[in-house]
Amino acid sequence: MTGLRGYFPPKTATGDSALAPAPPWYYSGDLLTVEYRTDPERVRELLPPPLELVDDDPGAVALIWADWQSCSTGRQELLDPVRSQYKEAFAVVRCSYRGRVYSRCVFIWVDKDFALARGWHQGYPKKLGSIHQTRPHPYGPAPRVEAGARFGATLAAGDRRLAQTVVTLREPSPTGGTVNAHPMAHHRWLPSVEKGKGLALDELVESGAAAFEAGQPWTGDAELELFDAPTEELARLVVREPIAAYYRQVGVVWDGGRLLESHTSGAE
Amino acid sequence: MTGLRGYFPPKTATGDSALAPAPPWYYSGDLLTVEYRTDPERVRELLPPPLELVDDDPGAVALIWADWQSCSTGRQELLDPVRSQYKEAFAVVRCSYRGRVYSRCVFIWVDKDFALARGWHQGYPKKLGSIHQTRPHPYGPAPRVEAGARFGATLAAGDRRLAQTVVTLREPSPTGGTVNAHPMAHHRWLPSVEKGKGLALDELVESGAAAFEAGQPWTGDAELELFDAPTEELARLVVREPIAAYYRQVGVVWDGGRLLESHTSGAE
Amino acid sequence: MTGLRGYFPPKTATGDSALAPAPPWYYSGDLLTVEYRTDPERVRELLPPPLELVDDDPGAVALIWADWQSCSTGRQELLDPVRSQYKEAFAVVRCSYRGRVYSRCVFIWVDKDFALARGWHQGYPKKLGSIHQTRPHPYGPAPRVEAGARFGATLAAGDRRLAQTVVTLREPSPTGGTVNAHPMAHHRWLPSVEKGKGLALDELVESGAAAFEAGQPWTGDAELELFDAPTEELARLVVREPIAAYYRQVGVVWDGGRLLESHTSGAE
Amino acid sequence: MTGLRGYFPPKTATGDSALAPAPPWYYSGDLLTVEYRTDPERVRELLPPPLELVDDDPGAVALIWADWQSCSTGRQELLDPVRSQYKEAFAVVRCSYRGRVYSRCVFIWVDKDFALARGWHQGYPKKLGSIHQTRPHPYGPAPRVEAGARFGATLAAGDRRLAQTVVTLREPSPTGGTVNAHPMAHHRWLPSVEKGKGLALDELVESGAAAFEAGQPWTGDAELELFDAPTEELARLVVREPIAAYYRQVGVVWDGGRLLESHTSGAE
Repeated sequence: MTGLRGYFPPKTATGDSALAPAPPWYYSGDLLTVEYRTDPERVRELLPPPLELVDDDPGAVALIWADWQSCSTGRQELLDPVRSQYKEAFAVVRCSYRGRVYSRCVFIWVDKDFALARGWHQGYPKKLGSIHQTRPHPYGPAPRVEAGARFGATLAAGDRRLAQTVVTLREPSPTGGTVNAHPMAHHRWLPSVEKGKGLALDELVESGAAAFEAGQPWTGDAELELFDAPTEELARLVVREPIAAYYRQVGVVWDGGRLLESHTSGAE
Repeated sequence: MTGLRGYFPPKTATGDSALAPAPPWYYSGDLLTVEYRTDPERVRELLPPPLELVDDDPGAVALIWADWQSCSTGRQELLDPVRSQYKEAFAVVRCSYRGRVYSRCVFIWVDKDFALARGWHQGYPKKLGSIHQTRPHPYGPAPRVEAGARFGATLAAGDRRLAQTVVTLREPSPTGGTVNAHPMAHHRWLPSVEKGKGLALDELVESGAAAFEAGQPWTGDAELELFDAPTEELARLVVREPIAAYYRQVGVVWDGGRLLESHTSGAE
Repeated sequence: MTGLRGYFPPKTATGDSALAPAPPWYYSGDLLTVEYRTDPERVRELLPPPLELVDDDPGAVALIWADWQSCSTGRQELLDPVRSQYKEAFAVVRCSYRGRVYSRCVFIWVDKDFALARGWHQGYPKKLGSIHQTRPHPYGPAPRVEAGARFGATLAAGDRRLAQTVVTLREPSPTGGTVNAHPMAHHRWLPSVEKGKGLALDELVESGAAAFEAGQPWTGDAELELFDAPTEELARLVVREPIAAYYRQVGVVWDGGRLLESHTSGAE
Repeated sequence: MTGLRGYFPPKTATGDSALAPAPPWYYSGDLLTVEYRTDPERVRELLPPPLELVDDDPGAVALIWADWQSCSTGRQELLDPVRSQYKEAFAVVRCSYRGRVYSRCVFIWVDKDFALARGWHQGYPKKLGSIHQTRPHPYGPAPRVEAGARFGATLAAGDRRLAQTVVTLREPSPTGGTVNAHPMAHHRWLPSVEKGKGLALDELVESGAAAFEAGQPWTGDAELELFDAPTEELARLVVREPIAAYYRQVGVVWDGGRLLESHTSGAE
């Protein structure tokens, strides 16, 4: 019993100050997805037990740029868009847990604090970054969504560029990608405040969309470059072979996940 | 003869470093326009001679938010979108010059340096600001362009909010606004580098779009608030009476203007 | 057992990607502190049981601006200063726990992600903000640390200014303030990922500096203004009466805290 | 005669909105200077006639990071520090004009709009960038100004890192560097608003400090790396041989320059 209100801190008598309101959270956004194969060992080294490498295409990676508007139930954030708009770029791999295939976000950067908080809650290992992606537009020089249309996307953090891609659309596609198409298996980890006491929170959680709608996906080809940085390891997921690229507009609702495992005194 | 290349500084042997390439400049963007009447004296005090107040609706003001992607002829900026995307908010009034009605931007904030440079070249009195506006989206909680849809927009500079609006769309409209519908009459002013020598550049210029395409405008109603700040005077253009609000998607080309008057030794 | 390295996520085979390395964390910084009295009920409403209002000067508040350079043991962050420099502004009150007086941060804004992560770990309810404070300098127009010197400080979040102060130094002081002079009593709260299941983490923790050095504090007088915002409640800590203001340079080490209480199934 | 007030646009009835007030401008700051030799041809290609390469050490370059607080006569900006604090990084070479040696800034990045405007007025080819440099501090892990102290500095623009250095101080020095020690010879260039009409403003100006005070300079050694970017050419000033590095605190006043040459119809 906290005696205070607010889904996240800071908690107050009203709850109005919380970094984000309680779910459900609603999202409108554009996704630019680049799928490729890396060395499967580079995926394996990011999977803590009991998560295991999948048998089928174990080195598959999706690097996804997303341009979002999000809000809570009252939708008031949409009318003060500094509180609803954010961009993110994230790397997703697949893993296996008790025989089931999951997607898992291994790196992610966003550009707003409310997105950081919601992500940490969901087990996304979010950092701040600077993310940009070309937007389609019906007039002027920006691309329409059509064959030959080209979209660029970039990611930087710590004043260093970490990734850049140019995607050229080819044709409509039955899917918007396969690597991020499973429920997410994420860890929620927080160290103990006491030195040497390991983790205070060590949960494996499953989550996915409570509702989902989407436009016609398009597929195409991507040029993708990843760059080294002292405190980033995205570039360890080296590009060995392209799979495909996708553009898609989506509407998503997130409304909580499910606890798979909880350990309360693991070593860090 | 500079012996160097580059439309803007820094000029180099290649010209690649210029803050922006030479026109034509191409733009795709979404405009959210709020038109209202202020005290005509507040408009008059912003018009240097020989510009005069217009007779017809002299206190009309348009406060316009724009969410742009822009590029030069090669369009390469679109694929590195940190170099093409920017947002701006600007206040436009009308004035009369030699019997002809012009639009004139009296205050404007943008969020990228290339937009500052291009604007100063065109006589826009640009500052940096933080600008946000709701984007329409076909899925999820963000609005469609339809009756009852609500769009918010905000402007801040110097860590202070300067303006915010909520626009509710009502119906399609034959126009996207009237205050900013004329050629622009702007000044290009730069002080002499020598103290007390007045202006080194004092030009009155006319400019407008070299090409323009646009979607169906929608009109509606706006709530608008303006806020004081120590080094900003947007709030002096007090809101006396609303006119209308508009949403419109446009494609624009700018390819130079025309010099109307040049004075070379005016007092500051 | 995570099988991965990294004090914070993202955890990897090397641990190099962690949002921040393990403590100890080292800080060099300048503090500008404004102490005042608010309505004690406004303090009480921010204290969850079993924390209680203190008897002595229960409405005392410290609003503190800090300009930091921080690093971990290897100090490599100092040489890539985008990873070490950050600013923050925070409001501190006092509370009583089992008869002992603690300081407690009730609102705080920082401008870097590593500071957010470290703060959440310590129970600081951090958000992102834009924070500025005048720095002393031995040459030119910036103030020296001397009688009559004036320092300004501002805080904004969500493109709205939340607080601003001007502090005028008067004389050296035996202390740098009293409100933030106790060990901190903070909560570490994280909701369950499952809807309606309350908190997954609900800890009351104590923490303080593992080492501390500081220069001569100066005291003086402050003008302080707080501003409303839709998702901020700093202004509820209304300024009823000034206490004093302080300037001080400090070096601090943080190296973990102590768990006071842990509850695992509280309501949100 | 503009009929309006304001040193820079936007000009208004009061002049309060100007992007920066009239000079004199006052600065307090810390300079970190890295001097090295590049291929003299790379310097020559940046010098428009009638500027010529100097005979003595023609390939000398200074890359300077500066952490500033600046203000106008009333000093009010210092108390709202978002309006006074800015950082910059700039590359300086030397040139000869009518037999006299000048310093000349060939590339420069700043992080505030008022600094852009003042710089363009002075002929600095300013762009926006993200600039960081280690600050000395008397407590905690940040360096003191002493032998062996290490300072890092970085520059990024367009989400790409352009330069980084680590400077290790060795001993006090009689100077703070020699490349930037001459009066500045800068061009003020603005294209005509009319296509194909060349430059509307084409001035060669001289300027320097109206007053200068400084602390004891320290010298030392630097590691310096420059990085390519599509619209930046700093890395063309390749590092062939280090000269020296310097740290210094300064106070500066700028109060106008002197027109050396003006051409009104040059080709772009």
